[in-house]
Amino acid sequence: MRKYIFILIIITISSCVIDKEENGFAIAIHGGAGTILKENLTTEKEFLIRGKLEEAIQVGHDILKNEGTSIEAVVETIKILEDSPLFNAGKGAVFTANKTIEHDASIMDGSDLNAGATTSTTVVKNPITLAYEIMTKSEHVFLSGKGAEKFARQQNLKLVNSSYFETEFRLNALKQAKKNESVTDSIYKDEKFGTVGCVAIDKKGNLAAGTSTGGMTNKKWGRIGDSPIIGAGTYANNLTCAVSSTGWGEYFIRAMVAHDISALVQYKNLSLKESARIVIQEKLLKLGGDGGVIAIDNKANIVMEFNTPGMYRASINKKGELNVSIYN
Amino acid sequence: MRKYIFILIIITISSCVIDKEENGFAIAIHGGAGTILKENLTTEKEFLIRGKLEEAIQVGHDILKNEGTSIEAVVETIKILEDSPLFNAGKGAVFTANKTIEHDASIMDGSDLNAGATTSTTVVKNPITLAYEIMTKSEHVFLSGKGAEKFARQQNLKLVNSSYFETEFRLNALKQAKKNESVTDSIYKDEKFGTVGCVAIDKKGNLAAGTSTGGMTNKKWGRIGDSPIIGAGTYANNLTCAVSSTGWGEYFIRAMVAHDISALVQYKNLSLKESARIVIQEKLLKLGGDGGVIAIDNKANIVMEFNTPGMYRASINKKGELNVSIYN
Repeated sequence: MRKYIFILIIITISSCVIDKEENGFAIAIHGGAGTILKENLTTEKEFLIRGKLEEAIQVGHDILKNEGTSIEAVVETIKILEDSPLFNAGKGAVFTANKTIEHDASIMDGSDLNAGATTSTTVVKNPITLAYEIMTKSEHVFLSGKGAEKFARQQNLKLVNSSYFETEFRLNALKQAKKNESVTDSIYKDEKFGTVGCVAIDKKGNLAAGTSTGGMTNKKWGRIGDSPIIGAGTYANNLTCAVSSTGWGEYFIRAMVAHDISALVQYKNLSLKESARIVIQEKLLKLGGDGGVIAIDNKANIVMEFNTPGMYRASINKKGELNVSIYN
Repeated sequence: MRKYIFILIIITISSCVIDKEENGFAIAIHGGAGTILKENLTTEKEFLIRGKLEEAIQVGHDILKNEGTSIEAVVETIKILEDSPLFNAGKGAVFTANKTIEHDASIMDGSDLNAGATTSTTVVKNPITLAYEIMTKSEHVFLSGKGAEKFARQQNLKLVNSSYFETEFRLNALKQAKKNESVTDSIYKDEKFGTVGCVAIDKKGNLAAGTSTGGMTNKKWGRIGDSPIIGAGTYANNLTCAVSSTGWGEYFIRAMVAHDISALVQYKNLSLKESARIVIQEKLLKLGGDGGVIAIDNKANIVMEFNTPGMYRASINKKGELNVSIYN
């Protein structure tokens, strides 16, 4: 009898150890989803985008490999995407109807459900670092506008002249959008929305998610999309998964995309893949919304689900395999 | 055989009719949760608060009785609470650290998951009407600050001088808060947070929820709480329930209170009562957050769950029974 109990204990311990080792660490990023068609993208631009996605994800992966936290990986990876003029976040973000550039960002720590978010800042170089400072240095979750910039100043974050963020490409997109005054028919549709985001799980099994954006070209009336909304654009919970969204923000808020995926995993015991499929391919489409998510569950499985022709994305899974993709 | 099929059809039809009739219509409101203790409330103030809660809920109930929609009931009921200086919303809202008054509000329609939200407006007399106009007249969900006010002007909403919202009581609360610079020890703690909200189900079985607030006394850096956040402060879905939250907003965002209650009802098949109990008494408390919710499910069952000593609240259930309460 004793012998059997001993064997049972050994099996249990080994399976725990194997399980822990098997989980490993992993990371995924997106650079926006939309009507991204091969015929609209020059070979040169595609090359640049793929290169930047690979550069960014390698930085995050190295952090995780060197015992860094998933939160650190998310912040540093998103900073690289924000600094690149190729994506709608930080430098190169889209213009509002008033020809200003207003950034939104958010971050969430799956280990303690702490979160930070910011909207409508115009001079903070890396909005994701502001979201991080709000999460860790204030008793608040969500700060906005001039007030958020004042807080950024107090935290000694890097501020820049707002002209730093401007690019000719986005200015043309604004002119085009003003001509059309419609979001549906434009070769710039894929650029009207779009975001950057990162999800990661570190060696300790902690999940984190972050998202950053300039919002929507030609946005008016102080419009806020889903990117700074915890539960819509960003969500992380060690019990389930980490999610970052990109797409038509209004629908992502109404569908509570990020939290709904987590809730399906937690309460229906569905896989992350099936949960993301239900929310993006069924619920979101039924409402009329398009876009996608990147997500990682607490076993380090990566899911990239979108209902648009393309989503700029990259991942390095728990086996260390790199994947960089654009089209469906 | 035909006879049995006929009987079966009759039984099915009758049970549908009975079910429809049984659901009925109902409404619930809150005027904030917190350290509301009998010894801190004068008999006169308690009388005034109870009277205003009863007046407001009767207005909403009459709308529902006269075939009005749950959305109409939510808007008109909240307007009365906003117009009263007794609650932290509209007139009588709390002061920010800059001695301004900045309103947040949101509304959601459970029949189509449409939603509207607004933050940081200073001149819109009834922020809940602005949230309603955003939901119904714009392609956006969430508008902020000066931009939201510009939209309000275009919709011909009633604007007022910001001094209209000011009350001596809230000014004293700000002075007290500035002295303490702490949210934990103050007889004003119960007034630091607090919100008004309404949930309703109409005769057609459509659910709606709305929330309106001035936020948090002494709030800084453009702080946004949970009240304008769909999924945190407000959520409605005909498949499950309508929820309006009140309490320490940061924790309500992190716990995704309103959407999590809905998710437990939908995915775990729990009752609304059990779902609200788990989220407010277990999950929210574990994070360290205090406050409460009012909620109605799609069978017109009302739940009022809070983990604070008191919550200003009133309800009229499907039997037409009025309940007005303050303490636990």
